[in-house]
Amino acid sequence: MTYCVALKLNAGLVFASDSRTNAGVDQIACFKKMRTFVNPDDRVIVIMSSGNLSITQNAINLLEQRGRHFDQRNIWDVDSMFEVAQLLGEALREVRQHDGVFLAQNNVDASANFIVGGQLRGEAMRLFLVYAEGNFIEAGEETPYFQIGETKYGKPIIDRVINSDTPLSDAVKCVLVSFDSTMRSNLSVGLPIDLVCYNRSSLKLDFQRHITQDDAYFSQISRRWSEGLKGVFASLPNPEWLRDIDMSHRFSADS
Amino acid sequence: MTYCVALKLNAGLVFASDSRTNAGVDQIACFKKMRTFVNPDDRVIVIMSSGNLSITQNAINLLEQRGRHFDQRNIWDVDSMFEVAQLLGEALREVRQHDGVFLAQNNVDASANFIVGGQLRGEAMRLFLVYAEGNFIEAGEETPYFQIGETKYGKPIIDRVINSDTPLSDAVKCVLVSFDSTMRSNLSVGLPIDLVCYNRSSLKLDFQRHITQDDAYFSQISRRWSEGLKGVFASLPNPEWLRDIDMSHRFSADS
Repeated sequence: MTYCVALKLNAGLVFASDSRTNAGVDQIACFKKMRTFVNPDDRVIVIMSSGNLSITQNAINLLEQRGRHFDQRNIWDVDSMFEVAQLLGEALREVRQHDGVFLAQNNVDASANFIVGGQLRGEAMRLFLVYAEGNFIEAGEETPYFQIGETKYGKPIIDRVINSDTPLSDAVKCVLVSFDSTMRSNLSVGLPIDLVCYNRSSLKLDFQRHITQDDAYFSQISRRWSEGLKGVFASLPNPEWLRDIDMSHRFSADS
Repeated sequence: MTYCVALKLNAGLVFASDSRTNAGVDQIACFKKMRTFVNPDDRVIVIMSSGNLSITQNAINLLEQRGRHFDQRNIWDVDSMFEVAQLLGEALREVRQHDGVFLAQNNVDASANFIVGGQLRGEAMRLFLVYAEGNFIEAGEETPYFQIGETKYGKPIIDRVINSDTPLSDAVKCVLVSFDSTMRSNLSVGLPIDLVCYNRSSLKLDFQRHITQDDAYFSQISRRWSEGLKGVFASLPNPEWLRDIDMSHRFSADS
Protein backbone atom coordinates (compact mmCIF):
# COMPACT_ATOMS: atom_id res chain seq x y z
CA MET A 1 0.00 0.00 0.00
CA THR A 2 0.96 3.63 -0.38
CA TYR A 3 0.10 6.96 1.14
CA CYS A 4 0.98 10.23 -0.57
CA VAL A 5 -0.34 13.72 0.12
CA ALA A 6 0.38 17.12 -1.41
CA LEU A 7 -0.81 20.55 -0.23
CA LYS A 8 -0.99 23.72 -2.30
CA LEU A 9 -0.94 26.70 0.05
CA ASN A 10 -0.39 30.40 -0.45
CA ALA A 11 3.01 30.01 1.20
CA GLY A 12 4.13 27.11 -1.00
CA LEU A 13 3.80 23.41 -1.68
CA VAL A 14 4.28 20.42 0.61
CA PHE A 15 4.71 16.87 -0.71
CA ALA A 16 5.04 13.68 1.35
CA SER A 17 5.10 10.00 0.41
CA ASP A 18 5.71 6.75 2.25
CA SER A 19 8.08 4.05 0.98
CA ARG A 20 6.40 0.72 1.70
CA THR A 21 5.71 -1.51 -1.29
CA ASN A 22 4.19 -4.93 -1.13
CA ALA A 23 4.01 -7.28 -4.04
CA GLY A 24 2.54 -10.07 -1.92
CA VAL A 25 3.00 -10.61 1.80
CA ASP A 26 6.54 -11.96 1.51
CA GLN A 27 7.77 -9.23 -0.82
CA ILE A 28 7.65 -6.11 1.30
CA ALA A 29 10.27 -3.59 0.34
CA CYS A 30 11.07 0.11 0.27
CA PHE A 31 10.86 2.10 -2.93
CA LYS A 32 10.91 5.84 -3.31
CA LYS A 33 7.52 6.98 -4.57
CA MET A 34 8.60 10.57 -5.14
CA ARG A 35 10.59 11.95 -8.06
CA THR A 36 11.74 15.54 -8.43
CA PHE A 37 12.67 17.33 -11.65
CA VAL A 38 14.47 20.58 -10.87
CA ASN A 39 16.13 23.16 -13.10
CA PRO A 40 16.92 26.00 -10.67
CA ASP A 41 15.42 29.37 -11.55
CA ASP A 42 13.36 27.69 -14.28
CA ARG A 43 11.18 24.86 -12.93
CA VAL A 44 10.52 22.63 -9.94
CA ILE A 45 8.34 19.55 -10.59
CA VAL A 46 7.49 16.89 -7.99
CA ILE A 47 5.72 13.64 -8.90
CA MET A 48 4.36 11.08 -6.41
CA SER A 49 2.79 7.76 -7.38
CA SER A 50 0.60 4.96 -6.09
CA GLY A 51 -0.54 1.70 -7.65
CA ASN A 52 1.32 -0.91 -9.68
CA LEU A 53 5.02 -0.20 -9.14
CA SER A 54 6.21 -1.34 -12.57
CA ILE A 55 3.58 0.82 -14.25
CA THR A 56 4.33 3.97 -12.21
CA GLN A 57 8.12 3.56 -12.49
CA ASN A 58 7.97 2.97 -16.23
CA ALA A 59 5.68 5.94 -16.83
CA ILE A 60 8.03 8.26 -14.93
CA ASN A 61 11.11 6.73 -16.55
CA LEU A 62 9.51 7.32 -19.95
CA LEU A 63 8.96 10.95 -18.99
CA GLU A 64 12.55 11.29 -17.82
CA GLN A 65 13.94 9.46 -20.86
CA ARG A 66 12.13 11.77 -23.26
CA GLY A 67 13.49 14.76 -21.36
CA ARG A 68 16.92 13.81 -22.69
CA HIS A 69 15.90 14.27 -26.30
CA PHE A 70 15.29 17.88 -27.08
CA ASP A 71 13.75 17.15 -30.48
CA GLN A 72 10.40 16.30 -28.86
CA ARG A 73 8.08 18.10 -26.44
CA ASN A 74 9.24 17.17 -22.92
CA ILE A 75 9.06 18.15 -19.25
CA TRP A 76 12.09 20.45 -19.51
CA ASP A 77 10.74 22.64 -22.29
CA VAL A 78 6.94 22.78 -21.91
CA ASP A 79 5.61 26.14 -20.71
CA SER A 80 3.06 25.09 -18.10
CA MET A 81 2.37 22.59 -15.34
CA PHE A 82 -0.79 21.73 -17.30
CA GLU A 83 1.40 20.36 -20.07
CA VAL A 84 3.53 18.48 -17.54
CA ALA A 85 0.36 16.75 -16.28
CA GLN A 86 -0.59 16.01 -19.90
CA LEU A 87 2.81 14.43 -20.61
CA LEU A 88 2.52 12.31 -17.45
CA GLY A 89 -1.01 11.16 -18.31
CA GLU A 90 0.12 10.24 -21.83
CA ALA A 91 3.13 8.32 -20.50
CA LEU A 92 0.82 6.41 -18.14
CA ARG A 93 -1.55 5.52 -20.99
CA GLU A 94 1.36 4.38 -23.13
CA VAL A 95 2.79 2.08 -20.45
CA ARG A 96 -0.63 0.65 -19.60
CA GLN A 97 -1.30 -0.01 -23.28
CA HIS A 98 2.08 -1.70 -23.60
CA ASP A 99 1.93 -3.87 -20.45
CA GLY A 100 -1.74 -3.94 -19.49
CA VAL A 101 -2.79 -6.94 -21.58
CA PHE A 102 -0.04 -9.11 -20.13
CA LEU A 103 -0.86 -8.10 -16.55
CA ALA A 104 -4.56 -8.73 -17.16
CA GLN A 105 -3.75 -12.29 -18.23
CA ASN A 106 -2.65 -12.97 -14.65
CA ASN A 107 -5.30 -10.78 -13.02
CA VAL A 108 -2.68 -8.25 -12.00
CA ASP A 109 -4.09 -4.78 -11.42
CA ALA A 110 -2.33 -2.33 -13.74
CA SER A 111 -3.91 0.80 -12.28
CA ALA A 112 -1.84 3.71 -11.04
CA ASN A 113 -2.33 7.28 -9.82
CA PHE A 114 -0.06 10.30 -9.69
CA ILE A 115 0.08 13.60 -7.90
CA VAL A 116 2.16 16.11 -9.83
CA GLY A 117 2.82 19.66 -8.71
CA GLY A 118 5.33 22.45 -8.84
CA GLN A 119 6.03 25.73 -10.52
CA LEU A 120 7.44 26.87 -13.87
CA ARG A 121 8.92 30.34 -14.39
CA GLY A 122 6.16 32.69 -15.56
CA GLU A 123 3.37 30.66 -14.00
CA ALA A 124 1.84 30.30 -10.53
CA MET A 125 2.31 27.09 -8.51
CA ARG A 126 -0.05 24.30 -9.62
CA LEU A 127 -1.06 20.87 -8.36
CA PHE A 128 -2.69 18.02 -10.32
CA LEU A 129 -4.08 14.56 -9.64
CA VAL A 130 -3.66 12.11 -12.54
CA TYR A 131 -6.18 9.25 -12.59
CA ALA A 132 -5.49 5.68 -13.65
CA GLU A 133 -7.01 6.44 -17.08
CA GLY A 134 -4.53 9.27 -17.70
CA ASN A 135 -7.05 12.11 -17.32
CA PHE A 136 -6.45 14.61 -14.52
CA ILE A 137 -7.87 17.35 -12.28
CA GLU A 138 -6.31 20.44 -10.68
CA ALA A 139 -6.44 21.56 -7.03
CA GLY A 140 -8.28 24.83 -6.40
CA GLU A 141 -8.94 27.18 -3.50
CA GLU A 142 -11.65 25.07 -1.88
CA THR A 143 -9.71 21.80 -1.79
CA PRO A 144 -6.05 22.77 -1.58
CA TYR A 145 -4.76 19.18 -1.33
CA PHE A 146 -4.69 15.78 -3.01
CA GLN A 147 -4.12 12.33 -1.54
CA ILE A 148 -3.50 8.98 -3.26
CA GLY A 149 -3.27 5.41 -1.93
CA GLU A 150 -4.59 4.72 1.58
CA THR A 151 -6.26 8.10 1.93
CA LYS A 152 -8.99 7.78 4.53
CA TYR A 153 -7.21 7.45 7.87
CA GLY A 154 -5.12 10.56 7.28
CA LYS A 155 -7.87 12.74 5.80
CA PRO A 156 -9.76 13.98 8.92
CA ILE A 157 -6.83 15.94 10.39
CA ILE A 158 -6.16 17.63 7.02
CA ASP A 159 -9.83 18.60 6.71
CA ARG A 160 -9.79 20.07 10.21
CA VAL A 161 -6.52 22.01 9.97
CA ILE A 162 -5.55 22.92 6.41
CA ASN A 163 -6.70 25.90 4.39
CA SER A 164 -4.88 28.01 1.80
CA ASP A 165 -3.52 30.36 4.47
CA THR A 166 -1.89 27.65 6.61
CA PRO A 167 1.85 28.39 7.07
CA LEU A 168 4.34 25.79 5.79
CA SER A 169 5.48 24.74 9.28
CA ASP A 170 1.88 23.97 10.39
CA ALA A 171 1.30 22.21 7.08
CA VAL A 172 4.32 19.95 7.62
CA LYS A 173 3.17 19.20 11.18
CA CYS A 174 -0.29 18.31 9.86
CA VAL A 175 1.10 16.08 7.12
CA LEU A 176 3.17 14.17 9.67
CA VAL A 177 0.14 13.69 11.97
CA SER A 178 -1.77 12.50 8.91
CA PHE A 179 0.97 9.94 8.17
CA ASP A 180 1.05 8.85 11.81
CA SER A 181 -2.72 8.13 11.79
CA THR A 182 -2.42 6.24 8.49
CA MET A 183 0.53 4.10 9.60
CA ARG A 184 -1.19 3.24 12.89
CA SER A 185 -4.28 1.94 11.10
CA ASN A 186 -2.69 0.38 8.01
CA LEU A 187 0.51 -1.53 8.62
CA SER A 188 1.28 -1.66 4.90
CA VAL A 189 1.97 2.09 4.91
CA GLY A 190 5.38 2.65 6.51
CA LEU A 191 8.45 4.75 7.15
CA PRO A 192 10.61 6.25 5.76
CA ILE A 193 8.63 9.28 4.62
CA ASP A 194 9.99 11.48 1.84
CA LEU A 195 9.13 15.11 2.52
CA VAL A 196 9.59 18.08 0.20
CA CYS A 197 8.72 21.73 0.90
CA TYR A 198 8.68 24.41 -1.75
CA ASN A 199 8.48 28.16 -1.09
CA ARG A 200 6.20 30.01 -3.48
CA SER A 201 8.18 31.33 -6.46
CA SER A 202 11.58 30.25 -5.16
CA LEU A 203 12.08 28.02 -8.24
CA LYS A 204 14.43 25.77 -6.28
CA LEU A 205 14.00 22.70 -4.07
CA ASP A 206 13.89 24.54 -0.75
CA PHE A 207 13.69 21.66 1.66
CA GLN A 208 13.94 17.88 1.47
CA ARG A 209 13.92 15.39 4.34
CA HIS A 210 14.01 11.62 4.52
CA ILE A 211 12.15 10.76 7.75
CA THR A 212 13.24 7.40 9.16
CA GLN A 213 12.41 5.53 12.35
CA ASP A 214 15.18 7.43 14.13
CA ASP A 215 13.67 10.83 13.41
CA ALA A 216 13.31 12.49 16.82
CA TYR A 217 10.78 15.07 15.67
CA PHE A 218 8.45 12.55 14.08
CA SER A 219 8.59 10.33 17.18
CA GLN A 220 7.76 13.32 19.35
CA ILE A 221 4.80 14.36 17.17
CA SER A 222 3.51 10.78 17.14
CA ARG A 223 3.76 10.37 20.93
CA ARG A 224 2.34 13.76 21.85
CA TRP A 225 -0.54 13.45 19.38
CA SER A 226 -1.49 10.09 20.85
CA GLU A 227 -1.31 11.38 24.43
CA GLY A 228 -3.21 14.53 23.46
CA LEU A 229 -6.06 12.59 21.83
CA LYS A 230 -6.41 10.37 24.87
CA GLY A 231 -6.44 13.47 27.08
CA VAL A 232 -9.20 15.12 25.05
CA PHE A 233 -11.21 11.90 25.05
CA ALA A 234 -10.89 11.59 28.83
CA SER A 235 -12.04 15.20 29.25
CA LEU A 236 -15.29 14.64 27.32
CA PRO A 237 -18.34 14.44 29.59
CA ASN A 238 -19.98 11.06 30.17
CA PRO A 239 -23.53 10.61 28.89
CA GLU A 240 -25.81 11.45 31.81
CA TRP A 241 -28.53 9.21 30.45
CA LEU A 242 -26.25 6.23 30.93
CA ARG A 243 -25.81 6.72 34.67
CA ASP A 244 -28.57 4.23 35.41
CA ILE A 245 -27.10 1.49 33.26
CA ASP A 246 -23.68 1.84 34.87
CA MET A 247 -25.37 1.60 38.27
CA SER A 248 -27.48 -1.37 37.31
CA HIS A 249 -24.40 -3.15 36.07
CA ARG A 250 -22.68 -2.62 39.37
CA PHE A 251 -25.46 -4.48 41.18
CA SER A 252 -26.43 -7.04 38.56
CA ALA A 253 -25.91 -10.76 39.08
CA ASP A 254 -23.36 -12.10 36.62
CA SER A 255 -23.44 -15.41 34.82
CA MET B 1 -23.56 4.50 2.71
CA THR B 2 -23.76 3.03 6.18
CA TYR B 3 -21.73 2.96 9.35
CA CYS B 4 -22.37 0.38 12.07
CA VAL B 5 -20.15 -0.58 14.99
CA ALA B 6 -20.53 -3.07 17.83
CA LEU B 7 -18.28 -3.55 20.87
CA LYS B 8 -18.05 -6.63 23.06
CA LEU B 9 -16.68 -5.63 26.46
CA ASN B 10 -16.52 -7.34 29.80
CA ALA B 11 -19.21 -4.95 31.03
CA GLY B 12 -21.57 -5.59 28.16
CA LEU B 13 -22.34 -4.91 24.51
CA VAL B 14 -22.73 -1.62 22.65
CA PHE B 15 -24.35 -1.39 19.21
CA ALA B 16 -24.72 1.73 17.05
CA SER B 17 -25.90 2.28 13.48
CA ASP B 18 -26.61 5.29 11.29
CA SER B 19 -29.79 5.67 9.23
CA ARG B 20 -28.76 7.18 5.89
CA THR B 21 -29.57 5.17 2.78
CA ASN B 22 -28.89 6.28 -0.74
CA ALA B 23 -30.18 4.53 -3.79
CA GLY B 24 -28.77 7.17 -6.14
CA VAL B 25 -28.12 10.81 -5.34
CA ASP B 26 -31.77 11.82 -5.51
CA GLN B 27 -33.04 8.97 -3.35
CA ILE B 28 -31.56 9.65 0.04
CA ALA B 29 -33.73 8.44 2.85
CA CYS B 30 -33.63 7.18 6.43
CA PHE B 31 -34.03 3.50 7.22
CA LYS B 32 -33.37 1.77 10.48
CA LYS B 33 -30.39 -0.55 10.07
CA MET B 34 -30.75 -2.16 13.49
CA ARG B 35 -33.21 -4.88 14.52
CA THR B 36 -33.58 -6.30 18.00
CA PHE B 37 -35.06 -9.66 18.99
CA VAL B 38 -35.71 -9.78 22.71
CA ASN B 39 -37.36 -12.39 24.90
CA PRO B 40 -36.66 -11.09 28.43
CA ASP B 41 -34.81 -13.48 30.74
CA ASP B 42 -34.17 -15.77 27.75
CA ARG B 43 -32.37 -13.96 24.89
CA VAL B 44 -31.32 -10.58 23.54
CA ILE B 45 -30.24 -10.48 19.89
CA VAL B 46 -29.22 -7.33 17.98
CA ILE B 47 -28.61 -7.33 14.21
CA MET B 48 -27.15 -4.42 12.21
CA SER B 49 -26.77 -4.41 8.44
CA SER B 50 -24.96 -2.68 5.58
CA GLY B 51 -25.13 -3.12 1.82
CA ASN B 52 -28.09 -3.57 -0.52
CA LEU B 53 -31.17 -2.54 1.49
CA SER B 54 -33.63 -4.93 -0.16
CA ILE B 55 -31.25 -7.84 0.44
CA THR B 56 -30.59 -7.01 4.10
CA GLN B 57 -34.24 -6.27 4.88
CA ASN B 58 -35.43 -9.45 3.20
CA ALA B 59 -32.85 -11.60 4.96
CA ILE B 60 -33.88 -10.23 8.37
CA ASN B 61 -37.58 -10.46 7.49
CA LEU B 62 -37.07 -14.08 6.52
CA LEU B 63 -35.41 -14.70 9.88
CA GLU B 64 -38.28 -12.98 11.68
CA GLN B 65 -40.93 -14.74 9.59
CA ARG B 66 -39.49 -18.15 10.41
CA GLY B 67 -39.47 -17.26 14.08
CA ARG B 68 -43.28 -17.37 13.94
CA HIS B 69 -43.38 -21.03 12.97
CA PHE B 70 -42.24 -23.22 15.77
CA ASP B 71 -42.07 -26.34 13.63
CA GLN B 72 -38.67 -25.29 12.25
CA ARG B 73 -35.36 -24.26 13.85
CA ASN B 74 -35.53 -20.51 14.42
CA ILE B 75 -33.95 -17.60 16.32
CA TRP B 76 -36.31 -18.03 19.28
CA ASP B 77 -35.46 -21.66 20.00
CA VAL B 78 -31.81 -22.19 19.02
CA ASP B 79 -29.45 -22.67 21.96
CA SER B 80 -26.51 -20.46 20.97
CA MET B 81 -25.55 -17.19 19.29
CA PHE B 82 -23.45 -19.34 16.93
CA GLU B 83 -26.67 -20.86 15.61
CA VAL B 84 -28.26 -17.40 15.33
CA ALA B 85 -25.33 -16.32 13.12
CA GLN B 86 -25.78 -19.52 11.09
CA LEU B 87 -29.48 -18.80 10.56
CA LEU B 88 -28.70 -15.25 9.49
CA GLY B 89 -25.97 -16.37 7.06
CA GLU B 90 -28.35 -18.95 5.57
CA ALA B 91 -31.13 -16.36 5.21
CA LEU B 92 -28.70 -14.03 3.44
CA ARG B 93 -27.62 -16.79 1.04
CA GLU B 94 -31.23 -17.66 0.31
CA VAL B 95 -32.22 -14.07 -0.49
CA ARG B 96 -29.13 -13.51 -2.64
CA GLN B 97 -29.82 -16.73 -4.53
CA HIS B 98 -33.43 -15.67 -5.06
CA ASP B 99 -32.79 -12.06 -6.14
CA GLY B 100 -29.10 -11.97 -7.11
CA VAL B 101 -29.51 -12.97 -10.77
CA PHE B 102 -32.07 -10.25 -11.41
CA LEU B 103 -29.94 -7.58 -9.71
CA ALA B 104 -26.87 -8.71 -11.66
CA GLN B 105 -28.77 -8.17 -14.93
CA ASN B 106 -28.81 -4.44 -14.12
CA ASN B 107 -25.34 -4.38 -12.53
CA VAL B 108 -26.85 -3.80 -9.08
CA ASP B 109 -24.58 -4.89 -6.27
CA ALA B 110 -26.38 -7.51 -4.16
CA SER B 111 -23.74 -7.72 -1.44
CA ALA B 112 -24.59 -7.22 2.23
CA ASN B 113 -22.94 -7.57 5.64
CA PHE B 114 -24.30 -8.08 9.11
CA ILE B 115 -23.11 -7.66 12.66
CA VAL B 116 -25.07 -9.88 15.02
CA GLY B 117 -24.53 -10.05 18.76
CA GLY B 118 -26.25 -10.66 22.04
CA GLN B 119 -26.68 -13.24 24.72
CA LEU B 120 -28.77 -16.39 25.22
CA ARG B 121 -29.52 -17.82 28.65
CA GLY B 122 -26.83 -20.36 29.56
CA GLU B 123 -24.22 -18.80 27.29
CA ALA B 124 -21.79 -15.87 27.47
CA MET B 125 -22.31 -12.74 25.33
CA ARG B 126 -21.12 -13.25 21.74
CA LEU B 127 -20.57 -11.04 18.69
CA PHE B 128 -20.34 -12.10 15.03
CA LEU B 129 -19.62 -10.50 11.66
CA VAL B 130 -21.49 -12.11 8.75
CA TYR B 131 -19.83 -11.65 5.34
CA ALA B 132 -21.62 -11.11 2.03
CA GLU B 133 -21.14 -14.82 1.24
CA GLY B 134 -22.96 -15.89 4.41
CA ASN B 135 -19.89 -17.16 6.26
CA PHE B 136 -18.98 -15.44 9.52
CA ILE B 137 -16.35 -14.76 12.19
CA GLU B 138 -16.57 -14.14 15.94
CA ALA B 139 -15.04 -11.29 17.97
CA GLY B 140 -12.39 -12.34 20.50
CA GLU B 141 -10.33 -10.78 23.27
CA GLU B 142 -7.80 -9.10 20.95
CA THR B 143 -10.30 -7.38 18.68
CA PRO B 144 -13.39 -6.76 20.78
CA TYR B 145 -15.30 -4.91 18.05
CA PHE B 146 -16.68 -5.13 14.52
CA GLN B 147 -17.52 -2.40 12.03
CA ILE B 148 -19.39 -2.56 8.71
CA GLY B 149 -19.97 0.03 5.96
CA GLU B 150 -17.78 3.15 5.94
CA THR B 151 -15.37 1.82 8.54
CA LYS B 152 -12.09 3.69 8.14
CA TYR B 153 -12.74 7.22 9.40
CA GLY B 154 -14.15 5.99 12.71
CA LYS B 155 -11.60 3.23 13.35
CA PRO B 156 -8.59 5.15 14.78
CA ILE B 157 -10.38 6.39 17.92
CA ILE B 158 -11.70 2.88 18.66
CA ASP B 159 -8.20 1.42 18.25
CA ARG B 160 -6.79 4.04 20.62
CA VAL B 161 -9.44 3.82 23.35
CA ILE B 162 -11.26 0.50 23.44
CA ASN B 163 -10.18 -2.71 25.15
CA SER B 164 -12.20 -5.40 26.87
CA ASP B 165 -12.06 -3.59 30.22
CA THR B 166 -13.50 -0.29 28.93
CA PRO B 167 -16.63 0.68 30.95
CA LEU B 168 -19.90 1.05 29.03
CA SER B 169 -20.08 4.84 29.48
CA ASP B 170 -16.60 5.32 27.95
CA ALA B 171 -17.52 2.87 25.20
CA VAL B 172 -20.63 4.87 24.31
CA LYS B 173 -18.59 8.08 24.31
CA CYS B 174 -16.03 6.47 22.00
CA VAL B 175 -18.69 5.14 19.63
CA LEU B 176 -20.21 8.62 19.33
CA VAL B 177 -16.80 10.19 18.59
CA SER B 178 -16.28 7.45 16.01
CA PHE B 179 -19.61 8.37 14.37
CA ASP B 180 -18.76 12.06 14.49
CA SER B 181 -15.46 11.47 12.61
CA THR B 182 -17.23 9.28 10.04
CA MET B 183 -20.05 11.73 9.39
CA ARG B 184 -17.62 14.64 9.02
CA SER B 185 -15.63 12.83 6.33
CA ASN B 186 -18.44 10.98 4.53
CA LEU B 187 -21.62 12.96 4.03
CA SER B 188 -23.54 9.82 3.05
CA VAL B 189 -23.34 8.59 6.66
CA GLY B 190 -25.83 10.59 8.73
CA LEU B 191 -27.99 11.04 11.80
CA PRO B 192 -30.08 9.74 13.45
CA ILE B 193 -27.96 7.11 15.20
CA ASP B 194 -29.60 4.11 16.82
CA LEU B 195 -27.78 3.15 20.00
CA VAL B 196 -28.28 0.06 22.14
CA CYS B 197 -26.44 -0.88 25.35
CA TYR B 198 -26.62 -4.27 26.96
CA ASN B 199 -25.37 -5.11 30.46
CA ARG B 200 -23.63 -8.45 30.69
CA SER B 201 -26.10 -11.19 31.65
CA SER B 202 -29.06 -8.88 32.15
CA LEU B 203 -30.98 -10.71 29.40
CA LYS B 204 -33.04 -7.60 28.70
CA LEU B 205 -32.63 -4.54 26.45
CA ASP B 206 -31.07 -2.26 29.07
CA PHE B 207 -30.77 0.93 27.12
CA GLN B 208 -31.89 2.22 23.74
CA ARG B 209 -31.56 5.74 22.32
CA HIS B 210 -32.41 7.34 19.02
CA ILE B 211 -29.87 10.17 18.60
CA THR B 212 -31.17 12.92 16.33
CA GLN B 213 -29.80 16.31 15.30
CA ASP B 214 -31.33 17.83 18.43
CA ASP B 215 -29.41 15.56 20.80
CA ALA B 216 -27.63 17.96 23.18
CA TYR B 217 -25.08 15.38 24.35
CA PHE B 218 -24.03 14.36 20.85
CA SER B 219 -23.65 18.03 19.81
CA GLN B 220 -21.52 18.67 22.88
CA ILE B 221 -19.27 15.67 22.22
CA SER B 222 -18.89 16.69 18.58
CA ARG B 223 -17.99 20.31 19.40
CA ARG B 224 -15.63 19.56 22.27
CA TRP B 225 -13.84 16.80 20.34
CA SER B 226 -13.25 19.17 17.44
CA GLU B 227 -11.97 21.96 19.72
CA GLY B 228 -9.85 19.47 21.66
CA LEU B 229 -8.17 18.10 18.52
CA LYS B 230 -7.36 21.59 17.29
CA GLY B 231 -5.94 22.41 20.72
CA VAL B 232 -3.69 19.35 20.75
CA PHE B 233 -2.54 20.11 17.20
CA ALA B 234 -1.69 23.70 18.14
CA SER B 235 0.30 22.47 21.14
CA LEU B 236 2.54 20.21 19.02
CA PRO B 237 6.04 21.65 18.54
CA ASN B 238 7.00 23.06 15.14
CA PRO B 239 9.75 21.28 13.22
CA GLU B 240 12.97 23.08 14.12
CA TRP B 241 14.54 22.07 10.85
CA LEU B 242 11.93 24.14 9.01
CA ARG B 243 12.84 27.42 10.69
CA ASP B 244 15.11 28.35 7.78
CA ILE B 245 12.45 27.77 5.16
CA ASP B 246 9.91 29.89 7.01
CA MET B 247 12.54 32.65 7.29
CA SER B 248 13.53 32.39 3.64
CA HIS B 249 9.92 32.63 2.64
CA ARG B 250 9.51 35.82 4.61
CA PHE B 251 12.26 37.48 2.59
CA SER B 252 11.75 35.85 -0.81
CA ALA B 253 10.59 37.80 -3.83
CA ASP B 254 7.13 36.68 -4.88
CA SER B 255 5.77 36.35 -8.38
